[in-house]
Amino acid sequence: MIRAAPCHGIDRRTLLASLALLPSLSGPLFSVSASAQAPTSGGLLPSWNDGPAKQAIIDFVRATSDRASPSYVVPEDRIAVFDQDGTLWVEHPMYTQVIYCLERVPDVVAKKPELKNKEPFKTVLSGNREAIARLPMQDLYKIIAATLSGMSVEEFNAEAKKWIETARHPRWNRLYTELAYQPMLEVLRYFRDNAYKTYIVTGGGQDFVRMYAEKVYGIPPEQVIGTAGGTKFAYASDGKPYLTKEPKLLLNDNNAGKPEGIHLMIGRRPYAAFGNSTGDRQMLEWTAAGAGARLKMLVLHDDAVREYAYGPAQGLPDTRVGAFTPALYDEAKKNGWTVISMKNDWRRIFAFE
Amino acid sequence: MIRAAPCHGIDRRTLLASLALLPSLSGPLFSVSASAQAPTSGGLLPSWNDGPAKQAIIDFVRATSDRASPSYVVPEDRIAVFDQDGTLWVEHPMYTQVIYCLERVPDVVAKKPELKNKEPFKTVLSGNREAIARLPMQDLYKIIAATLSGMSVEEFNAEAKKWIETARHPRWNRLYTELAYQPMLEVLRYFRDNAYKTYIVTGGGQDFVRMYAEKVYGIPPEQVIGTAGGTKFAYASDGKPYLTKEPKLLLNDNNAGKPEGIHLMIGRRPYAAFGNSTGDRQMLEWTAAGAGARLKMLVLHDDAVREYAYGPAQGLPDTRVGAFTPALYDEAKKNGWTVISMKNDWRRIFAFE
Repeated sequence: MIRAAPCHGIDRRTLLASLALLPSLSGPLFSVSASAQAPTSGGLLPSWNDGPAKQAIIDFVRATSDRASPSYVVPEDRIAVFDQDGTLWVEHPMYTQVIYCLERVPDVVAKKPELKNKEPFKTVLSGNREAIARLPMQDLYKIIAATLSGMSVEEFNAEAKKWIETARHPRWNRLYTELAYQPMLEVLRYFRDNAYKTYIVTGGGQDFVRMYAEKVYGIPPEQVIGTAGGTKFAYASDGKPYLTKEPKLLLNDNNAGKPEGIHLMIGRRPYAAFGNSTGDRQMLEWTAAGAGARLKMLVLHDDAVREYAYGPAQGLPDTRVGAFTPALYDEAKKNGWTVISMKNDWRRIFAFE
Repeated sequence: MIRAAPCHGIDRRTLLASLALLPSLSGPLFSVSASAQAPTSGGLLPSWNDGPAKQAIIDFVRATSDRASPSYVVPEDRIAVFDQDGTLWVEHPMYTQVIYCLERVPDVVAKKPELKNKEPFKTVLSGNREAIARLPMQDLYKIIAATLSGMSVEEFNAEAKKWIETARHPRWNRLYTELAYQPMLEVLRYFRDNAYKTYIVTGGGQDFVRMYAEKVYGIPPEQVIGTAGGTKFAYASDGKPYLTKEPKLLLNDNNAGKPEGIHLMIGRRPYAAFGNSTGDRQMLEWTAAGAGARLKMLVLHDDAVREYAYGPAQGLPDTRVGAFTPALYDEAKKNGWTVISMKNDWRRIFAFE
């Protein structure tokens, strides 16, 4: 038997660190200033400043899509994979989906009143963030399992869609979906304009991300690979079939689970991979190990003014979400992976700026 | 723990019935005659005779791709799913992949000589078909696990590709890949020409079918959903990462596993589904339960001269491969699913005819 499973490959340390950060969100909004850097020349990737990161992307796409190039890749093999949290949109101070799970608890309890005075639901309902932060891992799994399974896929889809269309990030008071990085949206389009199939490969829940990926990123559900649970086919009393989301883990799409998930869902090795944390390390290594030109890029969060600063540039410990450890930074440097500095490489971060 | 898993959702009865049929294959080739029916008019689906099956396909594609139609479907939602064995190519007298597994045994034993005198490998090596047919299910799983796991995905891919490029069907003395049904190849193209994404949803092994699906059916690996095992990411001594095929079942893509697999891999409901057996029943039901126009089709093997005759038209018991039971036939009739008669609806069966 597989045990009840997380929607997300978060570890407890990560979650606790994130929860601890939340109270600061009730404070005044940070001031958001446009980058001081000059606009780039040329029409490609307009939200990027000229520099080695932008150049690496353009050089790679040209080299693999020009028939005369020794690195030419036939269109059907052009696969590019993108981590989501911290790579395509903001992951701070907490993964959006974890907020969803916690906010779903009152509805789950309303349907199952017997949970009201049971832990860990009682603690979550109390709203006491410090107490929530002290919940042991097995209790967090209970919350995740209770909020992401036990309903039909249609019910889940409708709930998740409704939530994502209204939930807002406290710092910017913007929809989470508005916090997609404009430079990365341009990269996605640039790849697709050159016949690449773009995939999200996320530690987040596959069903959850599929609810908005087409609208936000232009990526259809079948090109979203994420942490996935099983479903169970059954018939309703009127004979109509339905699928129920089960608390059974099929794919933990983090770390080694990313190349494993890519094999399961795509069946061929990507030519380009974008990530931002140790959870993406194996995906980048797997991409790098293929023959020919391969693009490996890591987003470094080094812009405390316009977004957040965490990771090796700040010498922060790796207990925060999206850990970009010094070891990963060293591996990137050693192997010639390209590190994207949000501060220096991105002229604009969000579309609303 | 998940138990060692089959590459294929075959049951023992099916396999035994298939094995029992094999000796007849050493006899003279059947005579293959072209259909006596007249060619159809019009350029669409030229290997189909005019009739309700051909008309149902054309009516459906037109209704869902014409913007003025009340059944119009936006291009990004156009998903069509196809079973493989018995629907896209010949499944008689045995699933091609089972033959592959049995034929791989000598190589597996050569690499692990300790298996030579162990059952069930000893029996398979003996070539005694009656003894092979008597092997208990757990022994068959051992053969399947031993031949489809324990190697890197690259090694498996190379072996499977080499085999499928040379292995021949004894009745026609043709490559298995030449035994794709020409009328169905035309259907696949017709759907794709109208912006449908075509998927294979097979009980066969996902990695196996991916090795030839693009060449034979024009379907890329990421659009092949099949029975799938897990893989394990690791590093070779030179630091290079690789994936090993594990004897661990992730998806048994038969019966209820087909809609479950469709949800996992596509995340939306198909508009058209083609099958030929009880293993496809839930996939057709799941497709049918969606709103708007939905096409549900079953291939009936009723042409003993040009291919095989089995299923309800012949009143055969359902112990043979690809069972199309009388109960499924009744369900199709009751629910308005379209049954394709190979004998009457297909003017030509194979491209080489």
